[in-house]
Amino acid sequence: MTRLEQQLAFSRELDKLKAVLRRSQLMDGSRLENSAEHSWHLASLAILMAEYAAEPVDLTHVLKMLLVHDVVEIDAGDTFAYDKVNVASQQAREEKAADRLFGLLPEEQGRDLRALWEEFDQRTTPESKYANALDRLQPLMQNFYSGGHSWKKHGVTREQVMERMEAVRIGMPQVWPTILKFIDDACTAGMVKATSSSH
Amino acid sequence: MTRLEQQLAFSRELDKLKAVLRRSQLMDGSRLENSAEHSWHLASLAILMAEYAAEPVDLTHVLKMLLVHDVVEIDAGDTFAYDKVNVASQQAREEKAADRLFGLLPEEQGRDLRALWEEFDQRTTPESKYANALDRLQPLMQNFYSGGHSWKKHGVTREQVMERMEAVRIGMPQVWPTILKFIDDACTAGMVKATSSSH
Repeated sequence: MTRLEQQLAFSRELDKLKAVLRRSQLMDGSRLENSAEHSWHLASLAILMAEYAAEPVDLTHVLKMLLVHDVVEIDAGDTFAYDKVNVASQQAREEKAADRLFGLLPEEQGRDLRALWEEFDQRTTPESKYANALDRLQPLMQNFYSGGHSWKKHGVTREQVMERMEAVRIGMPQVWPTILKFIDDACTAGMVKATSSSH
Repeated sequence: MTRLEQQLAFSRELDKLKAVLRRSQLMDGSRLENSAEHSWHLASLAILMAEYAAEPVDLTHVLKMLLVHDVVEIDAGDTFAYDKVNVASQQAREEKAADRLFGLLPEEQGRDLRALWEEFDQRTTPESKYANALDRLQPLMQNFYSGGHSWKKHGVTREQVMERMEAVRIGMPQVWPTILKFIDDACTAGMVKATSSSH
């Protein structure tokens, strides 16, 4: 295959991310969100929210990271953050997916995208901290405005949401008070259990 | 509203782009594509294909442009490229949408996004030429691999597709032979009418 053919083959694979469903609904409650449109939402937000990043960030780097951060789900599926069993097997499934998917590209391009995905997961650079903060904020709003569908369905507690949102406190500290307000309101409205679960 | 509240209100509006359906199907033919996931696909491609841009491009600028280029469809809907009546009213509908949507943001952010959207439509800068080329290439592949669903449904001719694809010849000249190959194959397979339509 030529270089262009490899790139177009990868583009064809990308189409499958539109069929990977997440646990959160669209805000109007009409259907579950998919990982492709979720990635678009995060990248669009990244353009607007950079002023809240804990440290200065290279926006191009953030955008690239957010656009590819879920691509491995094409093979590995979306892993629900509060599902302990699947979270445990997530890394091995995603590594295998990364081998196959990024392996479709010309070598240096595949290596670059894979490095972005790894950087996102490691959360050590200013860019990945900011990207992860956005990846928590958007689903929180998604869940909140759709009436807490996936929180209620899975009996999620305030403690669990607080732990999950820690990435916002780290990556966008100025936004943290707003997160607390969303969580308080979600508890008051009965979308999230205010007390710890007993099991 | 505070600045952050304005930005989050805009983010909430963005969710609606996921409900704007295009005429092309996903490549597996399972459903129509929406404008949010389409925008994600284009931006992801932009990372990989910059080497084919007719002139050197600022990638950040391209990514921002592609991420917001369809946002006005939240109010104005998707306009099918081969539908003359709707194409005629498109500009007025989209201007009104841009006023409302970008008007939700802090002034300078709204002005910046609006400028990106206008730049995309004017196709005069290297970045907008490249972005428009991607915006033709991806739907071509989408149509081709889903069996030409929307071409067949609307009786689209080779001449119409060639005219539509002109943006690729301009923005990514090296990719043009590949476009011609797709069009030839689409004609051979009966997805696109090889001769001009008589009306």
